[in-house]
Amino acid sequence: MRFIVADWGTTRFRGYLLENETVLDQVSSNEGVSALQKGQHCDVFLKHCGHWLKAEPDAPVLLVGMVGSREGWVEAPYATCPAGPAEIAKALVPVDLENGRKGYIIPGLFCEPAPGAADVMRGEETLVLGTGIENGLICAAGTHPKWIEIKDGRIARFATYMTGEMYALLREHSMIGRPATTPEDSKGFDLGLDAAKRNSGNGRVGLLHLLFSARASVVSGKMNSNLLAPYLSGLLTGDEINGALAQFGRPSSVTILAEQGRADLYLHALKRHGIEAEFKEPQQALIAGLARIVRQHALG
Amino acid sequence: MRFIVADWGTTRFRGYLLENETVLDQVSSNEGVSALQKGQHCDVFLKHCGHWLKAEPDAPVLLVGMVGSREGWVEAPYATCPAGPAEIAKALVPVDLENGRKGYIIPGLFCEPAPGAADVMRGEETLVLGTGIENGLICAAGTHPKWIEIKDGRIARFATYMTGEMYALLREHSMIGRPATTPEDSKGFDLGLDAAKRNSGNGRVGLLHLLFSARASVVSGKMNSNLLAPYLSGLLTGDEINGALAQFGRPSSVTILAEQGRADLYLHALKRHGIEAEFKEPQQALIAGLARIVRQHALG
Repeated sequence: MRFIVADWGTTRFRGYLLENETVLDQVSSNEGVSALQKGQHCDVFLKHCGHWLKAEPDAPVLLVGMVGSREGWVEAPYATCPAGPAEIAKALVPVDLENGRKGYIIPGLFCEPAPGAADVMRGEETLVLGTGIENGLICAAGTHPKWIEIKDGRIARFATYMTGEMYALLREHSMIGRPATTPEDSKGFDLGLDAAKRNSGNGRVGLLHLLFSARASVVSGKMNSNLLAPYLSGLLTGDEINGALAQFGRPSSVTILAEQGRADLYLHALKRHGIEAEFKEPQQALIAGLARIVRQHALG
Repeated sequence: MRFIVADWGTTRFRGYLLENETVLDQVSSNEGVSALQKGQHCDVFLKHCGHWLKAEPDAPVLLVGMVGSREGWVEAPYATCPAGPAEIAKALVPVDLENGRKGYIIPGLFCEPAPGAADVMRGEETLVLGTGIENGLICAAGTHPKWIEIKDGRIARFATYMTGEMYALLREHSMIGRPATTPEDSKGFDLGLDAAKRNSGNGRVGLLHLLFSARASVVSGKMNSNLLAPYLSGLLTGDEINGALAQFGRPSSVTILAEQGRADLYLHALKRHGIEAEFKEPQQALIAGLARIVRQHALG
């Protein structure tokens, strides 16, 4: 089955012409959702993918990611966890393309990890379905890593951590990261993981203290300034993992969906907890997830 | 006894002519440490306080705050905890004023809250001595709140939290604070304190998750956008207090040194833990602390 897809996030537009899980053609631009105004989305889509629409008059069209947010083409209301392929395919939101043809925006997911608490995703649900995992714990690690629990082939619940964005804030805008120097000494990452232990269990001292303490170690001469940046990365990653293990329990294994460099850091950190993890390529998972949703949608 | 003081921080210069704990004259400018280059400090001091030096040829001169940091006039090495008035007076660092007269920079303090960990302060040690508290827990709450344990009249140990700076980062530079609207609904502060409970005890979920979850509550329509800013403030303050109570144990009382608005938030939050707190005016404490150090220095 051939179908047309836009993976449309905050900063990038990526179009694919797919045959099952094979990429026949692709296009990419920086016309992400944050660069566009209301009303521009259809024209941008047709500019990049219009020739595929003409060549493949029967191909279904799917759109995934922040294109379904309030700032996107049309707001696609979140489906609620637990949700699997059937629930997600049922909640697709149509948009008009040209000549009466429709595209379908994949809804994001909402979950309530605790009474009154909230978490959301847009796009990772498709990656997760693409892994084919029926039961297990997945970590989709980007700017806002998400830990996702799968039960009986459906996304049961998940928790998002602002780890990557926090690291960028500390490096670019905070006095905490200011004493950091390059070239970095990557040994700092393990020191940061060690420090994160002080914030787990009963003796927890607070992440806000550990962050200040990282700077204090440098200005008091107790730590070399070239360790600071990897230390902050280790501290934040360690605190995220401690939180995820407390929230979801100790898993038998974890699947990491991330670019290879970031995935290696998670594999390393989890190994220190004695937890085996497996790496999967996010791009492949995305395409497999899209194919799964398109098939489910075709079933009606 | 008359003496001359500069309370010289990152952003402000404040000069005082004091007689014991009474302010006879004062001056203030925005020539903080971050606005100056090496070599400018003496001239700035003489411009603002030179007439007092001439009028009071025998008055001791003290300088307190970031003026003793690496970026300040002269780096005054940290004294190490535990430290009281005697240890601090012994570690004063002289600087040349004019005609052979000297001023003395009050050193900051270093402590090792856990093996290999580090924390530092510059200025708060003087506030703390000014409270006259011999045994107890003090919270000096500014941009980087410090919880300080006093034993037998000496600063035993302390922990700093980047709470205020983190709030500013989230509001000014992060996607977490972006959906916040005004006028704020202050009820959000208590909701944030409630959320912080999810990060204490055994079920801790991680501050990085709770921060993302705050945004998710708004974008999923579960929380009004005018609650978000006070919610973030409550969440950060609550996580700080949870950390401090875990670190120092549950105190019989706490003394809050902060401007009144901020102090009220701490008094309120601590009351929910069943902990009574007392407010003290930081400016008065600073002057009392300076008087105490000057007397100790005069003793030799």
